[in-house]
Amino acid sequence: MTDARHNAPILPPRILMGPGPSDVSPRVLAAGARPTIGHLDPEFQILMDGIKGQLKRVFRTQNAVTFPVSGPGSVGMEACFVNLVEPGDTVIVCQNGVFGGRMKENVERCGGTVVAVDDDMGKPVDPDKLRAALKAHPETKVVAFVHAETSTGVVSGAATLCAIAREAGCLTIMDAVTSLAGIPVEVDAWGADAVYSGTQKCLSCPPGLSPITFSDRAIAAVKARKTKVQSWFLDLNLVLAYWDGEGGRSYHHTAPVNALFGLSEALAMVEEEGLENAWARHARTHNALRAGMEAMGIAFLVDPAYRLPQLNTVFIPAGLDDAATRGALLRGYGIEIGAGLGPFAGKIWRIGLMGESSRINHVLILLAALEKQMREAGVSVPGSGVEAAAAAA
Amino acid sequence: MTDARHNAPILPPRILMGPGPSDVSPRVLAAGARPTIGHLDPEFQILMDGIKGQLKRVFRTQNAVTFPVSGPGSVGMEACFVNLVEPGDTVIVCQNGVFGGRMKENVERCGGTVVAVDDDMGKPVDPDKLRAALKAHPETKVVAFVHAETSTGVVSGAATLCAIAREAGCLTIMDAVTSLAGIPVEVDAWGADAVYSGTQKCLSCPPGLSPITFSDRAIAAVKARKTKVQSWFLDLNLVLAYWDGEGGRSYHHTAPVNALFGLSEALAMVEEEGLENAWARHARTHNALRAGMEAMGIAFLVDPAYRLPQLNTVFIPAGLDDAATRGALLRGYGIEIGAGLGPFAGKIWRIGLMGESSRINHVLILLAALEKQMREAGVSVPGSGVEAAAAAA
Repeated sequence: MTDARHNAPILPPRILMGPGPSDVSPRVLAAGARPTIGHLDPEFQILMDGIKGQLKRVFRTQNAVTFPVSGPGSVGMEACFVNLVEPGDTVIVCQNGVFGGRMKENVERCGGTVVAVDDDMGKPVDPDKLRAALKAHPETKVVAFVHAETSTGVVSGAATLCAIAREAGCLTIMDAVTSLAGIPVEVDAWGADAVYSGTQKCLSCPPGLSPITFSDRAIAAVKARKTKVQSWFLDLNLVLAYWDGEGGRSYHHTAPVNALFGLSEALAMVEEEGLENAWARHARTHNALRAGMEAMGIAFLVDPAYRLPQLNTVFIPAGLDDAATRGALLRGYGIEIGAGLGPFAGKIWRIGLMGESSRINHVLILLAALEKQMREAGVSVPGSGVEAAAAAA
Repeated sequence: MTDARHNAPILPPRILMGPGPSDVSPRVLAAGARPTIGHLDPEFQILMDGIKGQLKRVFRTQNAVTFPVSGPGSVGMEACFVNLVEPGDTVIVCQNGVFGGRMKENVERCGGTVVAVDDDMGKPVDPDKLRAALKAHPETKVVAFVHAETSTGVVSGAATLCAIAREAGCLTIMDAVTSLAGIPVEVDAWGADAVYSGTQKCLSCPPGLSPITFSDRAIAAVKARKTKVQSWFLDLNLVLAYWDGEGGRSYHHTAPVNALFGLSEALAMVEEEGLENAWARHARTHNALRAGMEAMGIAFLVDPAYRLPQLNTVFIPAGLDDAATRGALLRGYGIEIGAGLGPFAGKIWRIGLMGESSRINHVLILLAALEKQMREAGVSVPGSGVEAAAAAA
């Protein structure tokens, strides 16, 4: 349906349970709609300082260089690689899903040499493989890995991987796009050097910003580069004149003012709840979904030992058509869930319970709607998912 | 003043008359606050198609590749350079202000060789210098220039520069950040090949998106590259799978959904007014400001023959302190005007009359506030700026 006035679609209400974006609180939407002010306005600079502090607390870091990059998570990823990787550098990329593959692309486009540590999709990164790769490639400068793989719903042992890398004298780049605020991310305690996230997952902001943090060691590496950073926009030496300028900020690019209003509000909401409480909520909501799915005879892809609570990958029940079922959920209930990627396309669904979408009500609605689809398709349903989830909540 | 709840500043109202962002309509702010939906939602894809059509009409082009890059104008600039410039390519950069300098930085970071065509800040690009540079450098692949220099308020003869470049067999990259929707931008009629703009100038959106358009010739050059585009995020071969995917869009990055809601509404407002009417309004509002400033004895930097109506550079009256006066305007009236850049720092102000800020009321408020500052500082004011502006409006 379109608005005849200017052919814009009248957007239907949605319940966002895919791999992101997640539901955004009305408070965050309202904050993002505050009147635009100048990106160099002194009052806006106070807001910028506030956001830096908020991000340090959510990243659990004292890193001075902690701010949101003016672009979505993929830009945060690129900011980490273009600043830390110079032509000829060796970078170990641990790949156990789609986003590890994107990291390899980034290294190659920076002129770096990729050493691959591959694990199967659906499994975590194997620390022993990383140790072996470091032994075989003592020239390695950077170790990169994905903390929470959005393509599979797997969490890898970030503390262990960071410790192994640091012991070998390497810097780490960690993807925390889906993990931040959903499960513990301890940048300082783990000694992660360059970490990027996104706003549209467990922070429940609209997509468009990528919080990053760089350790002093990482910043020293940026300053010691022999070559210029290949991206003018992402060159930390330049961006920091805006985000970290002492005694007044200097113009680099025009920051996305309204998106930052929204991010500030979303981070305030995380702190009001308490980060630990948010982690616990994500775990509880996952438990309810798991109980419901299992009652309905639906199995999870990922072993409980390394399963993300905020990104749940389940096998599509035999007898249900992938696209038709997702379409029915969307049209009938406004529910968005995610398709499988790569080898899992058509085999699994990705169900996000992130941020504002990590609610028992979301779980109940999804289970009820899915149960109806199964019954209508003649798929046997061993028990009530809704009852089991409600009991587990 | 801060909001005790979470230390966020309570942002004061502003009248944005600097070099951007400009005032944003409540309609656009409200559109940006609509509930977030998925970036792959079929309803969102209808909106994406609508935005592509809207942008084609505002750029005056039939170019199939016309869409908003998910980042501010500097990212749009970088998208043009990283896709069209390969290592070893010769690029003529016409520089007559700050943004031409940024273009040179982009070329060098792509491994290209810059041939500089320099004109003084405050003057337009000299077509004869471009002709001479092309004769001296027949190997030139790309000619880059800024249509409307935000640092000085100068418009260059884009039609002429594009024609000269095309006659020499070169592609053109044109910066239309400040020009789009404020003065004529005729992408197809001029034969410009790669054009980027920003949302926070005459389109009066919040900053954060960069509309771009690529001609078929430019796309052919991207497809004929010998090397991979150095930015994964900006590689048009990949981005277009999302923005131009036939029979369904495939995931590349998560688009800034809410910012795109706002852009769609802002573009609808431009079309409701009519693009030609918007150009005429920008000219009228400039005339009022000019009459007022001249009555008050304040001179313009730029010759009327190549003066931008939407970005006015005026000499700071002798006897007024630059920063103190701008601070007084901001604190006393909420008015933001811009400082001079580079050699003009402390010598000129940059007064934006862009998009929603291109209003006679804005002009009257600024002139009244400025006249008061001048009188208080003991600076003689030959005549009433407000009266002259009102008479000219």
